[in-house]
Amino acid sequence: MIYVIGIGPGSYETMTHEAISAIENSDVIVGYKTYINLIEDLINGKEIVSNGMKQEIDRVKKAIEISKTGKIVSVISSGDAGVYGMAGLVLEMSEDEDVRVISGVTASTAAASVLGAPLMHDFCHISLSDLLTPLELIYKRVELASEGDFVICLYNPKSNGRPHYLEKAFDIMKKYKNSSTPVGIVKNATRENQEVHICTLDTINYELVDMLSIVIVGNSSTYIKDGKIITRRGYQL
Amino acid sequence: MIYVIGIGPGSYETMTHEAISAIENSDVIVGYKTYINLIEDLINGKEIVSNGMKQEIDRVKKAIEISKTGKIVSVISSGDAGVYGMAGLVLEMSEDEDVRVISGVTASTAAASVLGAPLMHDFCHISLSDLLTPLELIYKRVELASEGDFVICLYNPKSNGRPHYLEKAFDIMKKYKNSSTPVGIVKNATRENQEVHICTLDTINYELVDMLSIVIVGNSSTYIKDGKIITRRGYQL
Repeated sequence: MIYVIGIGPGSYETMTHEAISAIENSDVIVGYKTYINLIEDLINGKEIVSNGMKQEIDRVKKAIEISKTGKIVSVISSGDAGVYGMAGLVLEMSEDEDVRVISGVTASTAAASVLGAPLMHDFCHISLSDLLTPLELIYKRVELASEGDFVICLYNPKSNGRPHYLEKAFDIMKKYKNSSTPVGIVKNATRENQEVHICTLDTINYELVDMLSIVIVGNSSTYIKDGKIITRRGYQL
Repeated sequence: MIYVIGIGPGSYETMTHEAISAIENSDVIVGYKTYINLIEDLINGKEIVSNGMKQEIDRVKKAIEISKTGKIVSVISSGDAGVYGMAGLVLEMSEDEDVRVISGVTASTAAASVLGAPLMHDFCHISLSDLLTPLELIYKRVELASEGDFVICLYNPKSNGRPHYLEKAFDIMKKYKNSSTPVGIVKNATRENQEVHICTLDTINYELVDMLSIVIVGNSSTYIKDGKIITRRGYQL
């Protein structure tokens, strides 16, 4: 049996009961070491298999091997395991194992909750990581999403290897979105060391964004009120 | 004090600790009656203010009035309160009340977890309800999202007042997406009476979709394996 579990933003408080129960019922916990550390109190005493970034395939192989011995394995992802998480790889690579995906609060909605209510209307998720996706396709999606006046959530907005992709994405957005469109940057949403910055397409300081940030860019109905970003749904008040 | 709480898909098991604690600490629970019913065990004995669909503004007015008397109020939404939920209206209408948004597992990721792993790559949310959004803008978004090869999650895919919007949206998608693209329909994800249907753009039976369904349409890397929908992230296996 393999559970693929979204642990949410990273604190016990923001996990679901279902996720906690599944972890408690597991013999072995498999995950990226940063995420393992987030839940160390919960997994105290269990067998842990952790490794680093870019070792996802190896991690899933190990989980499947262990599951074949009859042990219950939990593969953990931060946020929701089904959103750019481990659920896909586990299902792709599994043979006849029983796999169950358990949802968690995903990074974009956790970030949104501390910014206010930016996701009240149609929105999309775009990852700026080109490790597995051609860069032209990423920019094409940024362009089409901007043309469609979607609220845009950027995952993996920056890393050492690609410091300028975010700036380029913003240049594309400015062709369609007003330069005063609100932008929220959230690091460590709802957990220790949370950082929140609210700015606009024109006033963003790219230095404030790192690999762990979520960047949310509003649509034409988004505004800032008392330090919160709100996207109007369209109710006549 | 006003909490705006996402209760997740609708069972105690899929709520976060934070959401449960906030509800337990509240004097009054305000919500759409269908959602109030989902958590009735948890709110037993508390003061309840519930009303029907399309009465959102009235509901928020009441929540603000009650909060002014010094009581702690929880306004509840299903899924995540910040995704087409009540967070926006509460923040728009509040004056100097302390408002805190508490995330939950949103409908699309709950639906995705029972379908397999369809949201492993860039995706968007589009509501087909034209109560507050011009229909042309909705179709424009469907078109641009399809052109961008996004996975598409349709919220409010159907109601009595608009039985044909879904079919029209599918016609638009077929201009860009292969007719064999996997489609998942989920009703009551992860709760009682859950229904899951897996089909393709070409084989969908529109009769299976109702107002409470979430419809997820894959991208060009989405496939079906052992009854699960999986979108490849791009790993070389």
